[in-house]
Amino acid sequence: MSRYGPQFGPDITFLGVPSCDLDDPASYVDAEVVIVGAPFDGGTSYRAGTRFGPQAIRMTDYLPHDGSRPSLALRTDGLLDLHVVDAGDVEMYSGDIESALPKLEAAVEKLTRAGVIPVVLGGDHSIALPELRALGKAHGPLAVLHFDSHTDTWDTYFAGQRHSAGTAFRRGVEEGWIDARASMQIGMRGSLFSDGDIQQSLDLGYEVVTTDQMLDGGLEALARRVLEKLRGRKVFLSFDLDVVDPAFAPGVQTPEAGGPSAREILRLLRSLRGLDLVGADVVEMNPSYDAGQISALLAATVAAEILALIAARRRDARSG
Amino acid sequence: MSRYGPQFGPDITFLGVPSCDLDDPASYVDAEVVIVGAPFDGGTSYRAGTRFGPQAIRMTDYLPHDGSRPSLALRTDGLLDLHVVDAGDVEMYSGDIESALPKLEAAVEKLTRAGVIPVVLGGDHSIALPELRALGKAHGPLAVLHFDSHTDTWDTYFAGQRHSAGTAFRRGVEEGWIDARASMQIGMRGSLFSDGDIQQSLDLGYEVVTTDQMLDGGLEALARRVLEKLRGRKVFLSFDLDVVDPAFAPGVQTPEAGGPSAREILRLLRSLRGLDLVGADVVEMNPSYDAGQISALLAATVAAEILALIAARRRDARSG
Amino acid sequence: MSRYGPQFGPDITFLGVPSCDLDDPASYVDAEVVIVGAPFDGGTSYRAGTRFGPQAIRMTDYLPHDGSRPSLALRTDGLLDLHVVDAGDVEMYSGDIESALPKLEAAVEKLTRAGVIPVVLGGDHSIALPELRALGKAHGPLAVLHFDSHTDTWDTYFAGQRHSAGTAFRRGVEEGWIDARASMQIGMRGSLFSDGDIQQSLDLGYEVVTTDQMLDGGLEALARRVLEKLRGRKVFLSFDLDVVDPAFAPGVQTPEAGGPSAREILRLLRSLRGLDLVGADVVEMNPSYDAGQISALLAATVAAEILALIAARRRDARSG
Amino acid sequence: MSRYGPQFGPDITFLGVPSCDLDDPASYVDAEVVIVGAPFDGGTSYRAGTRFGPQAIRMTDYLPHDGSRPSLALRTDGLLDLHVVDAGDVEMYSGDIESALPKLEAAVEKLTRAGVIPVVLGGDHSIALPELRALGKAHGPLAVLHFDSHTDTWDTYFAGQRHSAGTAFRRGVEEGWIDARASMQIGMRGSLFSDGDIQQSLDLGYEVVTTDQMLDGGLEALARRVLEKLRGRKVFLSFDLDVVDPAFAPGVQTPEAGGPSAREILRLLRSLRGLDLVGADVVEMNPSYDAGQISALLAATVAAEILALIAARRRDARSG
Amino acid sequence: MSRYGPQFGPDITFLGVPSCDLDDPASYVDAEVVIVGAPFDGGTSYRAGTRFGPQAIRMTDYLPHDGSRPSLALRTDGLLDLHVVDAGDVEMYSGDIESALPKLEAAVEKLTRAGVIPVVLGGDHSIALPELRALGKAHGPLAVLHFDSHTDTWDTYFAGQRHSAGTAFRRGVEEGWIDARASMQIGMRGSLFSDGDIQQSLDLGYEVVTTDQMLDGGLEALARRVLEKLRGRKVFLSFDLDVVDPAFAPGVQTPEAGGPSAREILRLLRSLRGLDLVGADVVEMNPSYDAGQISALLAATVAAEILALIAARRRDARSG
Amino acid sequence: MSRYGPQFGPDITFLGVPSCDLDDPASYVDAEVVIVGAPFDGGTSYRAGTRFGPQAIRMTDYLPHDGSRPSLALRTDGLLDLHVVDAGDVEMYSGDIESALPKLEAAVEKLTRAGVIPVVLGGDHSIALPELRALGKAHGPLAVLHFDSHTDTWDTYFAGQRHSAGTAFRRGVEEGWIDARASMQIGMRGSLFSDGDIQQSLDLGYEVVTTDQMLDGGLEALARRVLEKLRGRKVFLSFDLDVVDPAFAPGVQTPEAGGPSAREILRLLRSLRGLDLVGADVVEMNPSYDAGQISALLAATVAAEILALIAARRRDARSG
Repeated sequence: MSRYGPQFGPDITFLGVPSCDLDDPASYVDAEVVIVGAPFDGGTSYRAGTRFGPQAIRMTDYLPHDGSRPSLALRTDGLLDLHVVDAGDVEMYSGDIESALPKLEAAVEKLTRAGVIPVVLGGDHSIALPELRALGKAHGPLAVLHFDSHTDTWDTYFAGQRHSAGTAFRRGVEEGWIDARASMQIGMRGSLFSDGDIQQSLDLGYEVVTTDQMLDGGLEALARRVLEKLRGRKVFLSFDLDVVDPAFAPGVQTPEAGGPSAREILRLLRSLRGLDLVGADVVEMNPSYDAGQISALLAATVAAEILALIAARRRDARSG
Repeated sequence: MSRYGPQFGPDITFLGVPSCDLDDPASYVDAEVVIVGAPFDGGTSYRAGTRFGPQAIRMTDYLPHDGSRPSLALRTDGLLDLHVVDAGDVEMYSGDIESALPKLEAAVEKLTRAGVIPVVLGGDHSIALPELRALGKAHGPLAVLHFDSHTDTWDTYFAGQRHSAGTAFRRGVEEGWIDARASMQIGMRGSLFSDGDIQQSLDLGYEVVTTDQMLDGGLEALARRVLEKLRGRKVFLSFDLDVVDPAFAPGVQTPEAGGPSAREILRLLRSLRGLDLVGADVVEMNPSYDAGQISALLAATVAAEILALIAARRRDARSG
Repeated sequence: MSRYGPQFGPDITFLGVPSCDLDDPASYVDAEVVIVGAPFDGGTSYRAGTRFGPQAIRMTDYLPHDGSRPSLALRTDGLLDLHVVDAGDVEMYSGDIESALPKLEAAVEKLTRAGVIPVVLGGDHSIALPELRALGKAHGPLAVLHFDSHTDTWDTYFAGQRHSAGTAFRRGVEEGWIDARASMQIGMRGSLFSDGDIQQSLDLGYEVVTTDQMLDGGLEALARRVLEKLRGRKVFLSFDLDVVDPAFAPGVQTPEAGGPSAREILRLLRSLRGLDLVGADVVEMNPSYDAGQISALLAATVAAEILALIAARRRDARSG
Repeated sequence: MSRYGPQFGPDITFLGVPSCDLDDPASYVDAEVVIVGAPFDGGTSYRAGTRFGPQAIRMTDYLPHDGSRPSLALRTDGLLDLHVVDAGDVEMYSGDIESALPKLEAAVEKLTRAGVIPVVLGGDHSIALPELRALGKAHGPLAVLHFDSHTDTWDTYFAGQRHSAGTAFRRGVEEGWIDARASMQIGMRGSLFSDGDIQQSLDLGYEVVTTDQMLDGGLEALARRVLEKLRGRKVFLSFDLDVVDPAFAPGVQTPEAGGPSAREILRLLRSLRGLDLVGADVVEMNPSYDAGQISALLAATVAAEILALIAARRRDARSG
Repeated sequence: MSRYGPQFGPDITFLGVPSCDLDDPASYVDAEVVIVGAPFDGGTSYRAGTRFGPQAIRMTDYLPHDGSRPSLALRTDGLLDLHVVDAGDVEMYSGDIESALPKLEAAVEKLTRAGVIPVVLGGDHSIALPELRALGKAHGPLAVLHFDSHTDTWDTYFAGQRHSAGTAFRRGVEEGWIDARASMQIGMRGSLFSDGDIQQSLDLGYEVVTTDQMLDGGLEALARRVLEKLRGRKVFLSFDLDVVDPAFAPGVQTPEAGGPSAREILRLLRSLRGLDLVGADVVEMNPSYDAGQISALLAATVAAEILALIAARRRDARSG
Repeated sequence: MSRYGPQFGPDITFLGVPSCDLDDPASYVDAEVVIVGAPFDGGTSYRAGTRFGPQAIRMTDYLPHDGSRPSLALRTDGLLDLHVVDAGDVEMYSGDIESALPKLEAAVEKLTRAGVIPVVLGGDHSIALPELRALGKAHGPLAVLHFDSHTDTWDTYFAGQRHSAGTAFRRGVEEGWIDARASMQIGMRGSLFSDGDIQQSLDLGYEVVTTDQMLDGGLEALARRVLEKLRGRKVFLSFDLDVVDPAFAPGVQTPEAGGPSAREILRLLRSLRGLDLVGADVVEMNPSYDAGQISALLAATVAAEILALIAARRRDARSG
């Protein structure tokens, strides 16, 4: 039977894929991708509410749940060409980042051990660190493809905190899970952020592409550069929704004026066919500040494109 | 494992009860109550959006989904003392009331045939008619206990429409499913509604209690009157959220100023222990006009109280 | 043809009454009441936006525009028993209170000269002064029945301003349009307002009834007191929407916690049958801060009750 | 007298043009264009509320109603150079698409028979079919210029429904009102929509231009292509507001991420001088999901541009 | 110079009182009460955002900042009769409850050591524990007067967390800061909460007054009972905004339907003249879910009433 | 100590700069720039609420208040390289434009006499006139760089008003404060505005650059043109937030569809290094219509860029 998204039924999974149970490996033994929600906003210093991000992203879909989701751009079908299931949310207490992050790490580890690709719906960006730890243990140092308007490579945050939405991409390098020389950060900008921030990332070894560099140099050239640098590596794709201009995603924790449009960022993403994604997340979606649900829709679209990218690579591999 | 409401997991059922499948009677064979969503707003003339009512009501709960929901007032547990499952939503196209209502009727019929009590989450009030038809076929003419600020006994509506949110309680009498002499309508009011409307109901045989009569006469006296009149009858309880003042439920289709408070209406409900409810609904919840989710919360609380009322009667019967 | 409120048609008048043109006395020659909008918020010190009050009040109605609006409480029909037309809005520049108020005064004067009762939809409460001037010129010093949580009898406001939303009921006395000894102010309260404010009103001659006095003494006793004091006088009824608790009308300029409910204030109003209203207004409705349109609905309901009160008195007079 | 938009007065017509009465042909005998509202959302499967679209579009204008509305881009005046009146809304019951659509068809037929061009403000996109029927009867098979992010050429929708917001442009071809070979669909996109959808349109004969094709090929080239293909044909222009990115119009039924900007779509429209428009609509404006009224403003701007396009062609014809 | 609330000026303190610096005891040496903000929501399991509570409460005031704030009910002036200053907010990282709570404890300790009464603006209710610790160290076991719809005496919360918004009033007893036998909890209710919860509090020694008991027994009787029990004790007053019905305060973390009105709760508060308050807080104000700022206004009014209560007692003591 | 924006503390200044007191010149004797708020919306004809603009702009910042704010684009630090203080708001009664504007004029005059550059946060655009008067008295006729979608060169507005948000840039020329031949207006557009408006500006001597001209000609060429024309002149930069498309700033008084993006306008601004700014404002920010606070964020970002531009020029001058 066709199903019409969240309005019809209690079983709200992303795009209506089957649900699975993290504690029952048999429930995802055949899966290639498992969706996981990380309803955590304890790493947030400013606008609270990303804990409701996974729910908002899952509910934004309005198409029939018929097991098909073809991608016009990639000529693949993220659900037909790929076996995707949804494990629901990991239980994380936002008031205690020290105990919450390991819970997500454990969940992702279960999945990587089962050979599936986790796609995590956040939650604030502090959740990248436990993902990196779990993926790094399985795959060794990762090439990271990081879309964001901020570098998130601060040393400490707020009042000396080492774990937060602004520090994961420094911790990940320090702990050896990220191979910074093989990694890129795309979308940095701001009159409100310092070139000191960017220097921090450069010092760690990242290649940094500011919003101006991204758009002035052309999206096609940038896509080529990404593919050239990351192809053949195990890649972790981390997508912070605030990479786009706040007009396209007001519902985030820390919006940053002057960003690219939704179309620009989607075009870039769709150009990255061929990357070997071993994990991905879409983070910082905050429904408390959304307008007309457009931020949730964009986050869901990005997650669907990530599925399509994985599906495309699998199909290419099979047909190759 | 304890679960903490909608934020953790894909399986959003009312209060986290198990889900069942209408097409699989085995899935609700042991149930005493089945929750059904009716995401339909085709009977609405004014503020559209009650189609999202079932979703909003199911999502408003924030307590652990641990299978217990004790009622402080009734000293019962609507989930421990009663077997409740949730069948999800019936698929109803809001643009075609003629084809949509029979679908709900068929769903409710399945449940009554299986001997369970349906509790329907609306949706606009036009859904009462298919409920009445299905229940009436099973139980004969019903005593109706109707909370509302409007009588909904118009003959036609809008442009000659016989099926709408304003006509179900006339149709139900005309078609023989309602025994109006045994039925009460409680909460009618308005400078914006006419005593003509009330006369219509009186002419059909209903006992009508206006908001002023309800509150001036005292809630306890009214509870006694309801019990006296309806006890021993098969009762259909239909709760239109606009019975309360709009301050307590701005998220409805047609708010009516000057109503009782949430506490007053909950107290009345909680005083009705002993009624033999064979079906119930909570309707007209419209999240598009809600404020801080308080209307959804009140609707969910009313639905939980209805479960507690059913549980209390069952327990009384057993212990009696 | 029946019409269904603002959704059907360009000609949005209050309750769908015929429109008239202030500059064309023939267009209201037979009218008994003329609705006038005063879209002015230049007297506001705090939350701007009451300029959109008349529009919001006119648009909140969702019933068929069939020329009938029976009052359940008063057993009259505010439209059938009374000839009401709507003159639209007076053009008032909110940035220039000195030029704006006289425009409203001129409009009201036209109406009083034509023998009709003006019912003005505000706008902030500074508009009471031009109304008082126009009505006072026609009828002599008026008995004022003033519902509000504030006395509005400050001498100056903000930065020495004599004309504002907080000073009209002092100016009106000083200029001789109000007979304070025959007037009552009902609903004053607040931890945020001083008894100094109340003393000011007492010093001017007003009888002041605080929220506590209103509710502790009982609404029926208060209604008797009002009728006793004001019967036989030419009465100007001025209804500031913030008299109710903010839960019932969040959409106002200066909400004041701890007020009566909508039902309480409507009951009081409906008890005042017999007053000789020569003019009335409903003011301080601010849609920018409304929630689910409930403040606009309450304001419209109050205005409809005022029509019903006038209709009832006319009918009583005729049948008397 | 100058008038300042909806805040001053009860007679809210689009841009303050005179009102007319559909049942009184004399009231629009001299008109060249008649605005008609279609407050219907019965064809909607997802976010209800477009029934309030006509109201929101009419109320978004804030300029003096002085009978002039010059177009900077087209050097014409949509009101001075063209006789425009507004017929208000057609009464349509959203719960009964079968009876509602013929009412709009009848209204449009009256206008085409009188020789005027109808410009319809929706309402969901199901209203295109009755427009096509009425226009087709008068003008024969039409060339359609369809802006949208969806093709709306599904065969059935939801649960076998043939009439809906997703099927009008297939029905129109099947019933012979659209000459698909002479028609274009512009703006299709989505990771959430299938190339199957596009193939459906191609199979029906439409020329389909995706968002990527529109923007990669250049707006000027596309404008030339449209003019080349449609010039000399009777054209029906149907503008679904979701053609733009949701950032520019969050207030729609089914937003689709990654679209063109408002400026891009307005530039394209303004380049289409010379088309022989025999009818037009602006649909899917949903104020329940709008943010800061920007969606309503864009819809009103598009409608005003359509008037300017018609005015420009008339002036060119006269001066030619 | 008079100042008009938050709209004029950068120095936003509660009611415009002078600011002080916690690290500079000289800045509050003469103060009797110090306002402190606790922008922390790490103890929240459900709707995040109370971290913005202190800001919202401080900004809701619109009266001139002239150093006077007379209480109509208590005939005192919370600012003239009392020396109040505002210390701004304590820096608390919501992601780390273990490090954040001690920071508030240290701040409150500084104040108690200086002999002033701290009035804390929350923040979620987990902040009560550090307040209790600091106050308890100074004053010994406290009598607690706790307004809330929940008991907050759970042992652990969420996933074994001992520190949270639901556990502070158990921890406070266990750690010896609360003398439960001398303490009262007022306002408990819910179909959604268990009598198990209430039994927990009774077992700890609290006197529990449910919403029904509060309103059925009469507010005056309850006020007498509170005064009888708590007079002569060092009292900590903790006011959770969700004690009122959600209609009066939608902007909270966990609303509970069926509560008292704002007026009822304010009346009760105003009747408690004579208590020896050594500390107080107003917590759980969440602007992300507020409507028309009414929740912030009520929270600010409660805080102002608390100042008036303290002022009244001081004046009584002086005049006594 | 680091501070984290408005959430921590009562002293909300723009970017946390020190506060000063306009009446105490010693408090800004060393300052190079002084921020001033102008909370006035009396010049508004349409959507009221810009009076809360200064507050919203000051509160949108979420970075630590550590006295540094480096600009990535300009390689300067708007706070480290420049001494900036914040004078809070000028008290202006929105109902009396005649008395309010001189108050701002007097404030700005104090600052110019002290040799500092005022940066004013509006408020509606009528405030430009008193700024021009104060600056003109100090510096002689000014070159104006005016970003806006409207020319604001109407003669009168509304009902003959000479002072309003639509007339300041005509008054400024007439009174001799603006050297129109040396001035530019950038961003004009609209189907809703007439080329008559643009002709008015041309007739006054302004160089007008429409949105189409700005974007078609290229931002770099336009930057060169601005620098060529204005370099060496005393420049007043007036930035009306509605210059961008409403998607990027829904929270304004009079949005105009089809504008540039935030990134385009920020790029243009950042290209203007070298201008000798003697005063600037950011106006028409209206939080009542904002969505997710993105308009306030953009306004704050523009103000920060203006500081960076001033800092860059000072540094260039010192290093030159």
